[in-house]
Amino acid sequence: MAQEDVSNGAAAEKSRVTFTACKTQLTVEAHKVSDAVSFYKSVFGAVESGHSLYPKRKADQELPHLLSAELLLAGSTFLVCDVSSHSTLVVSAKTEGNNMTTLHLVTDDVEAAVAKAVDAGAVKAEEVSEVDSGGKKGKVTDPFGVTWIFSSPASKEV
Amino acid sequence: MAQEDVSNGAAAEKSRVTFTACKTQLTVEAHKVSDAVSFYKSVFGAVESGHSLYPKRKADQELPHLLSAELLLAGSTFLVCDVSSHSTLVVSAKTEGNNMTTLHLVTDDVEAAVAKAVDAGAVKAEEVSEVDSGGKKGKVTDPFGVTWIFSSPASKEV
Repeated sequence: MAQEDVSNGAAAEKSRVTFTACKTQLTVEAHKVSDAVSFYKSVFGAVESGHSLYPKRKADQELPHLLSAELLLAGSTFLVCDVSSHSTLVVSAKTEGNNMTTLHLVTDDVEAAVAKAVDAGAVKAEEVSEVDSGGKKGKVTDPFGVTWIFSSPASKEV
Repeated sequence: MAQEDVSNGAAAEKSRVTFTACKTQLTVEAHKVSDAVSFYKSVFGAVESGHSLYPKRKADQELPHLLSAELLLAGSTFLVCDVSSHSTLVVSAKTEGNNMTTLHLVTDDVEAAVAKAVDAGAVKAEEVSEVDSGGKKGKVTDPFGVTWIFSSPASKEV
């Protein structure tokens, strides 16, 4: 019976698994975390809530590179990580456009959001367009290969 | 002077761009959104907050396929989208393992979280290990090519 108790226990434990946070990881080219964090802060207004540094650089007093950073944006948390901190991830030298990570940002002003991102180095992936729901949609690829889709809710009845 | 006013106006608008929500998009193979939603609901306890259907199937009364769904998980929102709804995205027939999207889930029981995901069809990407902070870390690739990294906070001092 003991064996059965053990497996029941394990099954019960699995069913009770709960999660307290869900964070998307954006993996960027080596040594580009600082640039990406600056981009997301200045263009989207993201706020940094933590970071980790490259260990080995501290010895030679140069400004230590960021290895990863945690950012808060519109109620969500995401991580910006240096590709070297995730050895199993094979990333081509230039991740621009071939990064599968896509995030949606809801805003009242899609045109301004696209313009601001493009001013800061993003590339327009499609023109801003009206969507069935009455809102608008725009899409850019940022300098780190991440796709951002901006959408605005349907305008409220006047 | 009018031209200057216009550009000042546009610049002011750009600086005032604000975002009310940030949602990660998980792009899955054609017709797999329903399977992915079931997986995320049963394995992670995600809750559906909306969806859109394939338009053309309604005519022939078959159960219409999900085109996209919005899920809530641990305070975050993410979208599961059928690859065909994003024509510009070139995805190989089998996205398993080559999908760059990675999400982190914080939980008290990394082993149970990994076991539950593997039971439901995910593949262990690395063994569960202790991390410097005192917590644990586990990593799986789900049947839809998305990588999930489970981490537990450092155990509180006793």
